[in-house]
This record gives sequence, C-alpha cells and structure tokens, in this order.
Amino acid sequence: MPHAEILAASAPSLTAVLFGLSGCLVDFGSLARADSPPSADTHATPGALKILRSLQEQGIPCAWLDELPPSVSIPLAATLPRWIKAASPTSTRWPAPHACWQALMDLNIQRLEGCVLVSGEPRLLQSGLNAGLWTIGLASCGSLCGLSPEQWQALSEQQREHKRAKATVALYGLGVHSVIDHLGELGTCLADISLRQLKGEKP
Amino acid sequence: MPHAEILAASAPSLTAVLFGLSGCLVDFGSLARADSPPSADTHATPGALKILRSLQEQGIPCAWLDELPPSVSIPLAATLPRWIKAASPTSTRWPAPHACWQALMDLNIQRLEGCVLVSGEPRLLQSGLNAGLWTIGLASCGSLCGLSPEQWQALSEQQREHKRAKATVALYGLGVHSVIDHLGELGTCLADISLRQLKGEKP
Repeated sequence: MPHAEILAASAPSLTAVLFGLSGCLVDFGSLARADSPPSADTHATPGALKILRSLQEQGIPCAWLDELPPSVSIPLAATLPRWIKAASPTSTRWPAPHACWQALMDLNIQRLEGCVLVSGEPRLLQSGLNAGLWTIGLASCGSLCGLSPEQWQALSEQQREHKRAKATVALYGLGVHSVIDHLGELGTCLADISLRQLKGEKP
Repeated sequence: MPHAEILAASAPSLTAVLFGLSGCLVDFGSLARADSPPSADTHATPGALKILRSLQEQGIPCAWLDELPPSVSIPLAATLPRWIKAASPTSTRWPAPHACWQALMDLNIQRLEGCVLVSGEPRLLQSGLNAGLWTIGLASCGSLCGLSPEQWQALSEQQREHKRAKATVALYGLGVHSVIDHLGELGTCLADISLRQLKGEKP
C-alpha cells in the first residue's frame, strides 16, 4: 500500500476547515481594504480552488471568515464555489476566539477536535489559537509579505526567500502549528496534522 | 511555604468556570423538570455558595447553563449570587458544543485554555468535552444518582457508596477529566487541573 493510502486509511478525518478570505483563498498579498473598490483582486490564490474541491470530495465542511465589510468581502468571495459558507460576523473582533467559534457553530460542527484554521493574517491565526483550533499559517500570500502577485513575481528568488523566511518565523512565533507557503501545500499539511492527532498531539 | 501556597503561586490561573444549574449549583439530585412548579428545590447544593465566593475573590468569571425553560431555571437560580451570569440559550442542544461556546462568548472569554465545566449531567459534560473544555463530573448530586437530599441521607453509607461509585464510573466513561462527589471538593479539584495544565496536559 503506498504511503499516502496508509495515511488516508489510518488518520482520523478532519472535522472542519476554516479559511481566511483576503490573503488566503483570494486576494494574494491581502491588499483589499475596507474602502476597496469592487474591482479589488478577486482571483483565487494558487492552489485554493483545487484544495477546496478535494475537501468537498472528502465531505469536510468549510467556511471562510473575514473582518472586511460585506460590501468588500462578498465580491471578493464571488470566485469561490457556492458551497463554502461565509461565517456570520461577530461583534467581538480578532484575536478574540468568538469569530472562530461562531464559524464552527454556523457549520453546526459537533466537536472541536479535528478543526483547523488556515490563514495568512496573524490576528486571525491568534483567534484560532485562542479558540483551541489547529492553525496553519500562510507565509507568502498573507499580510506579512503583503505584495500583489505581480510585485511578488518581480522579486528575485533570493528576495522572495528572504520575505518568506521572515513571515514564517513571525507565524511560528505566534504559536501556529504549521506554516506553508501557499494553499498548493495544504493537502500534505492537513495529512500531517491528521497524523499528529493520531499520535495524541492536541492543538 | 505550605503546599497549597506553592500551588497558588505556580499554577496558571483558570480562565473561566461554567456550571450546570440543576443537579450542580442547585437542585441536588437534578429533580427539576420542564413542568416543575416554581416551588421546586432552589437550595444551593453543598459547597456551592462557598466555591462561588472563592472564585469571585480570585476574579474568575463564572456562568451557569441549563436546558430547562426560563420559567423553571430563573426561579431555581434565584438563590445564587447576582454576579454569576446565566448563559444565553442556544437552539442547538447538548451534547453539541454550541451552548458551552456561547457561554464563553457571553463571558467575553479571550481564550479556551484554562476554561472548565462542572456538571452532574452527562449530556452537558459531553457538550463541554466536545467544546474542548476541562470537565469535572459531580457524582452524587447530579442526574445519575437522581435522589433528593432527603432520599440521599436516608440511604446507608454502603448504599450511598455503591451509587456514588456507579455514577463515578459512568462519568469517567464519558471521558471527563475529574470526578468529585460534590462542590465542596471543587477547590482542590480546580487546583489539580491548574497543575495538570502547568505540566503541559491539555483537555
């Protein structure tokens, strides 16, 4: 049996995955602001649509959350598949845990175990840590690098590596459980978290 | 330095304590029902008022939660100090985690770490486990023994021990972190949970 199949057969399945919106599923570089025009970058980030498809096939409930006003977040999310839920806004802002718990309740999740948050925004990741979630930080497409896809591509490989390393250190400094570069690496990272769960590790 | 003082100095403080109402803070034996008259037993259970005073002195936020209709729960809670908050009802019932997360949000708690649920009701304890809380089961005053104080006192010591042991085994079977007989033992039990946290244990 190949290694990946052994993993899939033995690892406990994930309960739910929460995503940041801006700087995670869409809007590489997290450049959207509360007063952004509806023409803000609504492209899905590299790997976003593929991992969502995979999570849907596995029947894992997903939601996105953001603190941008709906006038900005709804057009930003238009490129995402309809089944991924927009979490209800809460009056208490990140890094309090409220938004993450509300998102899990919106998905009608029955237990905290196996719930994961993926984001490139330190304040949202801190909210996930405060809520007791597994947390995965995104180094290159979040607010810590803060560059548009064009600006990012214009950098030399060495400049990108420098910025990526700095963001990675900052995210681990928060206490997140894993850091990946972009959503194309999320499948492997989620399998790793399933394994860590299987070994008895708790977030 | 006496042992208890060393504990108090070194153990991380608790973040919040949630309590069941019927069969925990009041109504020994959990005999109140949805159609109970307002004359139902509103006495605080042994140790309840003392531990609440101690938690208040330590500045630890507390709330009670119950699934009885307000027409029954509010008169039941009348004997409790005013500062202990009644958690907002949720539409999703125990053992889903929603009620516990809602209670923590009502208290405006900033992190799950160090949050504890105390109850004699298996369905509420399961809700606490699902929400990621430390959970403490009450053996003698909850629904598993289900006897009024008079009925409980009328038993022989051996009969009480038999019922207490059976309830204790059932509560540990759920996966709760500690089981105590009544709230008079809660102070020591909370200190023990603080120590388990200090040693890196997670709920």
